[in-house]
Amino acid sequence: MKDLKDFVVTIPNYPKEGIMFRDITSVIQSAEGLQLAIDSMQNLVKDIDYDVIVGPESRGFVFGMPMAYNDHKPFVMVRKPGKLPRETISQSYDLEYGSATLEIHKDALYPGEKVLIVDDLIATGGTTEAIVKLVERLDAKVAGMVFLMELKGLHGRDRLKDYRIEAAISYDGK
Amino acid sequence: MKDLKDFVVTIPNYPKEGIMFRDITSVIQSAEGLQLAIDSMQNLVKDIDYDVIVGPESRGFVFGMPMAYNDHKPFVMVRKPGKLPRETISQSYDLEYGSATLEIHKDALYPGEKVLIVDDLIATGGTTEAIVKLVERLDAKVAGMVFLMELKGLHGRDRLKDYRIEAAISYDGK
Repeated sequence: MKDLKDFVVTIPNYPKEGIMFRDITSVIQSAEGLQLAIDSMQNLVKDIDYDVIVGPESRGFVFGMPMAYNDHKPFVMVRKPGKLPRETISQSYDLEYGSATLEIHKDALYPGEKVLIVDDLIATGGTTEAIVKLVERLDAKVAGMVFLMELKGLHGRDRLKDYRIEAAISYDGK
Repeated sequence: MKDLKDFVVTIPNYPKEGIMFRDITSVIQSAEGLQLAIDSMQNLVKDIDYDVIVGPESRGFVFGMPMAYNDHKPFVMVRKPGKLPRETISQSYDLEYGSATLEIHKDALYPGEKVLIVDDLIATGGTTEAIVKLVERLDAKVAGMVFLMELKGLHGRDRLKDYRIEAAISYDGK
């Protein structure tokens, strides 16, 4: 049987010199890879008691939606500024160069609601930390988070020490 | 039992005067709405023989991925320029003001592969027509397309006459 890692295509020096880019499109472009990805992520969090999945644009939608469907849970989108039609709150965070902002609908979560965060990748943890802040500003609780891939060399776990973090695949590098 | 339409929030005059914006985030923000949306779309295409789902960034991912998982099919992303890491082909199309471009990986489909296109909305059909062109330029075949919503007043079907089109909800207006 193939391993989940076998479906990841690595593109050296993309988007710039020295980066080993791990492509997730090749995983879901295989029926077998897609099943394995969702099943593996779901299996890692099967003991977590949660009410709702929150996932960021756009690869959080890719993995979060099938999991929400399978678990009969709602799905809440976190999006880039100006893309959500109703009233939002927003959270900025630093990137390597410059900054970015994410938004969530103000009515998307209720106080005390238990949230599972789903995304394709945890690298520096900057995006995930911004999502955590959005969730907590709505007085909801992060019950855990699951990623298809973790790039351990970027130490995302260090800034998210208080949370349960799962990843289906991990790479030592950046 | 609630109807799928009951989960759609309509926002008058968004993003501009005279537009009745149909919000899909409110559908998936309900566990019941999410199940009903995916089940309804899947049911509409259950007689279509297809090999792969193709969906555009980013709401095509939302509805296409759970359907691909449920049907044990692969999922191929259509994205905005510069977001796919491997070799792509691109297709431009006209918007009300200006134009837009979509891309697909060159190796994403094989000749003769039967494609089901999935997206949240068919309005003028411009985006869908661009996706059809990308699929056909890779010598694959469009077996059908399914949307959560159709805005009939924008006549998207007229420019896609040769294809089977299904929509779970339809509105007469724009």
